[in-house]
Amino acid sequence: MLKVFICGGSGYTGGELLRILSNHPEVIVTGVTSERSAGKSVKDLFPSLYKYSNLVYEPLRIEKILTKADLFFMALPHGESQKAVDFFFKHGKKVIDLSADYRLRDAKIYEKWYKVPHRFHATLKKAVYGLPEIYRNKIKKAKLIANPGCYPTGAILGLLPVLKNNLINISFIVIDSKSGISGAGRKADVSVSYCEVNEGFKAYAVGTHRHTPEIEQELSLLYGRDITVNFTPHLLPVDRGILTTIYAPIAKKVTVNEIVKMYKEAYKREPFVKVLEYGIYPNIKNIRGTNFCEIGLKVNERTNTLIVITSIDNLVKGASGQAVHNMNIMMGFGEKTALETLALFP
Amino acid sequence: MLKVFICGGSGYTGGELLRILSNHPEVIVTGVTSERSAGKSVKDLFPSLYKYSNLVYEPLRIEKILTKADLFFMALPHGESQKAVDFFFKHGKKVIDLSADYRLRDAKIYEKWYKVPHRFHATLKKAVYGLPEIYRNKIKKAKLIANPGCYPTGAILGLLPVLKNNLINISFIVIDSKSGISGAGRKADVSVSYCEVNEGFKAYAVGTHRHTPEIEQELSLLYGRDITVNFTPHLLPVDRGILTTIYAPIAKKVTVNEIVKMYKEAYKREPFVKVLEYGIYPNIKNIRGTNFCEIGLKVNERTNTLIVITSIDNLVKGASGQAVHNMNIMMGFGEKTALETLALFP
Amino acid sequence: MLKVFICGGSGYTGGELLRILSNHPEVIVTGVTSERSAGKSVKDLFPSLYKYSNLVYEPLRIEKILTKADLFFMALPHGESQKAVDFFFKHGKKVIDLSADYRLRDAKIYEKWYKVPHRFHATLKKAVYGLPEIYRNKIKKAKLIANPGCYPTGAILGLLPVLKNNLINISFIVIDSKSGISGAGRKADVSVSYCEVNEGFKAYAVGTHRHTPEIEQELSLLYGRDITVNFTPHLLPVDRGILTTIYAPIAKKVTVNEIVKMYKEAYKREPFVKVLEYGIYPNIKNIRGTNFCEIGLKVNERTNTLIVITSIDNLVKGASGQAVHNMNIMMGFGEKTALETLALFP
Amino acid sequence: MLKVFICGGSGYTGGELLRILSNHPEVIVTGVTSERSAGKSVKDLFPSLYKYSNLVYEPLRIEKILTKADLFFMALPHGESQKAVDFFFKHGKKVIDLSADYRLRDAKIYEKWYKVPHRFHATLKKAVYGLPEIYRNKIKKAKLIANPGCYPTGAILGLLPVLKNNLINISFIVIDSKSGISGAGRKADVSVSYCEVNEGFKAYAVGTHRHTPEIEQELSLLYGRDITVNFTPHLLPVDRGILTTIYAPIAKKVTVNEIVKMYKEAYKREPFVKVLEYGIYPNIKNIRGTNFCEIGLKVNERTNTLIVITSIDNLVKGASGQAVHNMNIMMGFGEKTALETLALFP
Repeated sequence: MLKVFICGGSGYTGGELLRILSNHPEVIVTGVTSERSAGKSVKDLFPSLYKYSNLVYEPLRIEKILTKADLFFMALPHGESQKAVDFFFKHGKKVIDLSADYRLRDAKIYEKWYKVPHRFHATLKKAVYGLPEIYRNKIKKAKLIANPGCYPTGAILGLLPVLKNNLINISFIVIDSKSGISGAGRKADVSVSYCEVNEGFKAYAVGTHRHTPEIEQELSLLYGRDITVNFTPHLLPVDRGILTTIYAPIAKKVTVNEIVKMYKEAYKREPFVKVLEYGIYPNIKNIRGTNFCEIGLKVNERTNTLIVITSIDNLVKGASGQAVHNMNIMMGFGEKTALETLALFP
Repeated sequence: MLKVFICGGSGYTGGELLRILSNHPEVIVTGVTSERSAGKSVKDLFPSLYKYSNLVYEPLRIEKILTKADLFFMALPHGESQKAVDFFFKHGKKVIDLSADYRLRDAKIYEKWYKVPHRFHATLKKAVYGLPEIYRNKIKKAKLIANPGCYPTGAILGLLPVLKNNLINISFIVIDSKSGISGAGRKADVSVSYCEVNEGFKAYAVGTHRHTPEIEQELSLLYGRDITVNFTPHLLPVDRGILTTIYAPIAKKVTVNEIVKMYKEAYKREPFVKVLEYGIYPNIKNIRGTNFCEIGLKVNERTNTLIVITSIDNLVKGASGQAVHNMNIMMGFGEKTALETLALFP
Repeated sequence: MLKVFICGGSGYTGGELLRILSNHPEVIVTGVTSERSAGKSVKDLFPSLYKYSNLVYEPLRIEKILTKADLFFMALPHGESQKAVDFFFKHGKKVIDLSADYRLRDAKIYEKWYKVPHRFHATLKKAVYGLPEIYRNKIKKAKLIANPGCYPTGAILGLLPVLKNNLINISFIVIDSKSGISGAGRKADVSVSYCEVNEGFKAYAVGTHRHTPEIEQELSLLYGRDITVNFTPHLLPVDRGILTTIYAPIAKKVTVNEIVKMYKEAYKREPFVKVLEYGIYPNIKNIRGTNFCEIGLKVNERTNTLIVITSIDNLVKGASGQAVHNMNIMMGFGEKTALETLALFP
Repeated sequence: MLKVFICGGSGYTGGELLRILSNHPEVIVTGVTSERSAGKSVKDLFPSLYKYSNLVYEPLRIEKILTKADLFFMALPHGESQKAVDFFFKHGKKVIDLSADYRLRDAKIYEKWYKVPHRFHATLKKAVYGLPEIYRNKIKKAKLIANPGCYPTGAILGLLPVLKNNLINISFIVIDSKSGISGAGRKADVSVSYCEVNEGFKAYAVGTHRHTPEIEQELSLLYGRDITVNFTPHLLPVDRGILTTIYAPIAKKVTVNEIVKMYKEAYKREPFVKVLEYGIYPNIKNIRGTNFCEIGLKVNERTNTLIVITSIDNLVKGASGQAVHNMNIMMGFGEKTALETLALFP
């Protein structure tokens, strides 16, 4: 049994790691940290996670917990993860970091967007961006995974096939995303309180969201040239789910069938990407609680535009499910282990 | 007192007309039709509209009701409105048609998108597109108003100032809209049932929605040249509200201040358009139940893109409120009469 | 124009007072307080209340604001209201207190349930419980109104006719209430955050809620003997509304018609109580945003039980609307002034 | 592998059976029926159930499908199930009927409440009421299970321990239930459409709901004397979940500890009933998608009343999960097989 530890286990992504790992036959969770809830049991914070009735939150003392596990999931806020990741990594532990701290290869870009210094450049260089659909082979050998952001996951998977195939004009890419409220985290803040959010809908951080450089980094690497995008996130009055609608001018003559085939081909071996039949569009409700990314396609011939729509569960494929997927790949477990449940509908 | 009649009063836009008109000191509703609910009272279908306890639905018999009113609101389904509109119009009545039947100036385009013939070309020519922010002077003298569609209202108001000022490159305009479920109408259909919609989110009619030619018609008229747009509607799990996020490449050197000023200038005399301070974005919750359109602006300098976000209540500014606004203009009433209530929050 | 001041205007009941008063032709709001938001404008906290663009929150300095108004609405938290109410009252101002501080006639019962001392017994004696359906004549002459709690309003109105007519056995009364989230106030608290509340439902404060003694006080006064009740509040995932289902054994032979008639008779002159036809039950959606209380009745002959179901909007009839109603009565304004809008549906 | 067939597989309980059985290692679903959707694939109706991509709906032809399975789940509407159940049962198949057709032991009571004749009295006598917490031993040997209704499941489990222990006065029992919308089924009906239900809450079928005699039958059997109850269902704007608040006068001197102990004792061997610590109340969100029933307790000493609050997922413990539990017991599988997933939170 692989011993794993969760640093930062009182928020939604931490809870989701616990939920998913409860189904994993080869993993045991040996501990979980929370500063604010130290001393409380997991069940106090998550009555639904009754299987962890013996697990009690402890403060994050990196030296103390070092020997308690072989793999550390880090679900700390951005900035707070850097040092602990570096510590576990340097002591030979496997680390999967769900924060943004090791996602951007260029520390300067990180510092510009996140407004905190990056103090572990050497470790940063060792991090592998944990999007299995691109980096599976590197993940297999990795010691440190920078688990992708929720928005980037849906955006990158939507554009991967056409960027690889040089099919779109990259000069004007629009990525319009809509996310459920759990993406904002579990926090005491009027702005996420029920009455402020319910029956509402709005955009936020227009053109300035921190996931922008992460999206651009990966799209640029796929394409081989710098790509800049218009990325607008919106807040959707649902618990979970991100739907991303992507628009890009088509650069070449291409038929609908060729595009559909290109997507199906690109993902044919991927266990968690489903390319829908042409004319069928994703609904976040159909993949809620699962690790799937669904992709719907439209070629708008009137405007010569490719429209790609992707849906993921922000807490699963956009965070904890992808983290477990990465663990499965790193450890040589079956990739789908603990990630096969069907969505609850309705 | 102006006598008005509502043809098609059992759906959400019909109910909304009744709600708004109940506050109008210069109007009396003399009748309301519904085929399916003929014989029932308004209160049976809308317990909240208790002030209409004496009003009973009757079937639409155009000859019979002709003399009962001076102005007819038509809230019938598309295609079913054509003939009745023509009849009332030819008999000298004022008509405000909330269907799409008289919105598209070119009957061929109507027939292509709506798949029904238009049989009243002469009357079509007399129709004025009822967007007061563009056509106020024509509305004043009009006998027949084609009340704009909900999506077009938010889209056109978002682009009017920059098209008039020739500020954007029209080659790649993206209009990404998200609408509450009431936009689908009041109907017995599994697809709008609570459990299918709640906690879900999806796009529909991607690139093929019938409001596309209406948006393009009005943008093209504003710009003086044909404009084609990418328009994608999505279904939002809320009762009311449309948020539209518009992306267009900026064509000229321009500062943020100049753009904000351009919008404020364009709408400075408009009672129902609010241009928000730069950096503030609309939320559909803030204008729920009102006739306002709120506009938020973002100049993305990294991508040289203008992002305009508009919000309206699809049943008010997107339908019945705008219809009453048009009536107020046609009749010389105060424009804001019956349209001044503040949004319910939360 | 009556000058009114709102002490505690940044929460939902304060915002609702502002919304309702914006429609009142005989009132001007001369100021509004908030400790936390002092210096901000009303529009910053409530973008929907755009009509108050010149109104800025100020801290509560009772001496300073004393001369600014003739009537003070107090929407402060329980315990914090006592002293300011006493101050304004003693200086000859009219006061309508939306807190619980002056609702319980017996200071000892207040202290037992609210765990704070009551230091203004003389003023407490002058307070009139502001339920117009019982105390209209006293309200006309009152200087200090203790505006009823939200749950008590729905519970008392549901039982008033049968208690007056001695129709039920008071030995086992069940009051099962379900309230929208706005009842918990506008606050930064994980427990009211969207993801905790949405798709959930639970009871809270079972048998211990502070509105229990208030309900019992008024029911006992109506009946002329002490009444004890089982009161259970639940948290409903909606913004607004309280539905209360009341069960009581029937004490006398009585027909359905007699009971319906008794309710209709009891409320026939009440502008804000609607007794529904037998077999029709209230839905909180039908009275949202209004000052109505709807009452549905069922005589269960199998169990010889009377079931009364009442619905109110907790922020209107359960708080700010009732406060304005009380003001209208105190000042001799038309009782329905500013309270006549129809519910937004859907 | 046990071959099972689902008759009536296009509604929410049918879909839920498919979802749960997809995790069952000892079962294979050999077919599924739907009249309206015959010819469509499961995936067409439930995109989330992608694992059944080869399963196509067929019409219910009982002779034709008889040999295709060893056990038949019947998820047909009430009245339509009778004959098919009788047929499969007489041909030696195991049958688990999720309809109400075989729940009421007295055919006359069935006919009175359901307004249809019962034509299979002999078969009715063989049916075992499938509440494992009461009838486990009978279920082990049963051939025909009448799977309990959703409301009765939560109500009966809430009262079982005190009825067995003769602790309450049965003269005035109140059962106030609140159910998510999926309880109304998957149907094209305005009354369950999003805009009618969302932000609303109401009671329905007050004192007349068909689950009343089912609740009374089982409570009476537990108690050994006829029991009549006040049962009121309400419609909750959530997808899933029933919370039931039960009130009963306490008949004996008893301490809080004794009552809690009595409940813990009664359910100590039950895998799916969780008695919460005193002072903790259930929330439907914590058991969503699971087969659990959570029970919270309150002794109101002021009124000498026991208040029991139970929560279940109406589609799982209230329908399909309980059906699979019954199958597990009948077949000698591990009771928890396929029923161990944790709730999705949030």
